Amino acid sequence: MHEFEIIKKFFFPISKKNKSALKLNDDVFFDKKKGLVISIDTYNEGYHFLNFKRPDLVIKKIIRSSISDLICKGVIPKFYFISGSGNKKSFSKKNLLAISKSLKQEQKKYSIFLCGGDTTFSNKLSFSVTSIGYAKNIIYRNKAKLNDDIYVTGNLGDSFIGLQILKKKINFKKKINNYFINKYYEPDIQFNLTKSLLKFANCSIDISDGLVADLEKMTNSQNYSYQLIEDKIPISKYLLKLIMYRKFKKSKLISNGDDYQVLFTASPDKSRIINRISAIKGVKITKIGKIISSNKKSSIIDQKGKQILVKDKGYNHIF
Amino acid sequence: MHEFEIIKKFFFPISKKNKSALKLNDDVFFDKKKGLVISIDTYNEGYHFLNFKRPDLVIKKIIRSSISDLICKGVIPKFYFISGSGNKKSFSKKNLLAISKSLKQEQKKYSIFLCGGDTTFSNKLSFSVTSIGYAKNIIYRNKAKLNDDIYVTGNLGDSFIGLQILKKKINFKKKINNYFINKYYEPDIQFNLTKSLLKFANCSIDISDGLVADLEKMTNSQNYSYQLIEDKIPISKYLLKLIMYRKFKKSKLISNGDDYQVLFTASPDKSRIINRISAIKGVKITKIGKIISSNKKSSIIDQKGKQILVKDKGYNHIF
Repeated sequence: MHEFEIIKKFFFPISKKNKSALKLNDDVFFDKKKGLVISIDTYNEGYHFLNFKRPDLVIKKIIRSSISDLICKGVIPKFYFISGSGNKKSFSKKNLLAISKSLKQEQKKYSIFLCGGDTTFSNKLSFSVTSIGYAKNIIYRNKAKLNDDIYVTGNLGDSFIGLQILKKKINFKKKINNYFINKYYEPDIQFNLTKSLLKFANCSIDISDGLVADLEKMTNSQNYSYQLIEDKIPISKYLLKLIMYRKFKKSKLISNGDDYQVLFTASPDKSRIINRISAIKGVKITKIGKIISSNKKSSIIDQKGKQILVKDKGYNHIF
Repeated sequence: MHEFEIIKKFFFPISKKNKSALKLNDDVFFDKKKGLVISIDTYNEGYHFLNFKRPDLVIKKIIRSSISDLICKGVIPKFYFISGSGNKKSFSKKNLLAISKSLKQEQKKYSIFLCGGDTTFSNKLSFSVTSIGYAKNIIYRNKAKLNDDIYVTGNLGDSFIGLQILKKKINFKKKINNYFINKYYEPDIQFNLTKSLLKFANCSIDISDGLVADLEKMTNSQNYSYQLIEDKIPISKYLLKLIMYRKFKKSKLISNGDDYQVLFTASPDKSRIINRISAIKGVKITKIGKIISSNKKSSIIDQKGKQILVKDKGYNHIF
């Protein structure tokens, strides 16, 4: 059973039946009355991160992934907790020092503070990170409006290439390898954009599972379709080079997840303010499609101008 | 390395340096400014619970263990999150139904609400539970005063016997077995006492690791000693029978943990109000010792009136 089905079938019926209980239908829990926002996620070795050869980088990845959930909702993260389950080797003195050093760096970079956590023994390595912020309002899921533009921040796909390099499936020059691996471990989360998002986004999500999967999630209880323009989907110059010289297909590279960019929709009349904030904050924000009536099916216009229908919630599967 | 040493050495130095960052030196995180109290704990199969043959009971145990952290601090739990890591067998449809049913029962019993969670794949079964409450004040650790009386709620030791029965190390009649097993899985946490604790307790903790270990934890940065009277330590009539007829030694049974009773200290002039609240609320509260000057060493007066010095933070080890 898929996680979403488990939640829907067994846990949604017993959850609190009010606006507060967002987490079961959103990425964060929001207690509007008290202004509390919480994100809790578990990260397992081999699934959410490849291995623990670089504890310093794994820790950065999971901290950024966790606070990304708050950032994409327009909420500044304030505190975090981290719990680790693993064996003695995972939590050797050397690794603990590396973990502690990385946490310190992330704390400084994002003005967040460690407030607790624990370590327990387990053969399988996993971490659970809780991030907390306070906010009067947040950007919800499922609040897209008909004719909204669909936007994404930063670039997509670099992290996926980084993972393939780490898995030794592809290999380039050291400098190129390092560029992509760095994007896998230290994604450019859009911390500086957090508060601005509230000014224009109707709904939002961070891309962890993949562009199409997360777009589906963002609008999952709404009766709308969407149209994406593949050509518009933003990629780095490094990824562009791979596509040009290595004959990689863009469609295979941009919807695999681990990007931690913000995906949001906004009314067309917000395009000026979005461009202005993009320029002021120095954050790339790209219009990649539209929310359309459910009379039409969700589709992606490929680079030859051909309309590809999206099935099975997986864009990648249909190419 | 012991968990406490790990926290002290690697994580305390990078934690927020103010009163809010209690979790690293307490069982809960308390943001006094916002009135937010959070407890996060991980429970691993084979360590925090024996096995997953009775998912319905395991879930009750971990939920009670989690909210017990708030209750002992005088904080009413309001929301909780639960994350499970396990394999398909652990999260079979049958088990998910049992889990869901138990959560529903606990929610009703303690007026708490599920606000989120997730399930991830892992060969090793573990749960992480986050409990949240709001409070203006809480009862801290390390606030014992010289000459304070030491109190404990309910009875100690039943849960430990339950665990030994489950491990098939001892065996009694079915009714007796069931009594003790029930105390292991469904500890009598003192929900009704929560708010009253703030009226008299100077410091508090819930007993999860064992009476002596948790007493040491409760006063760990204070320069005091304590004296406990073994004879006063409250036990059930069932446990008393085992001691009388089976020649079990009380000293071996009462400091093993999993009790989830509240251990606290209070000024001697509070003894009247404590007795009155105990009567009104129908909760057993027993005076078991005193906080004394560190000129004397911490000790336990055994049933023969002999003073036993406590070493290695483990009462059980010295008998």
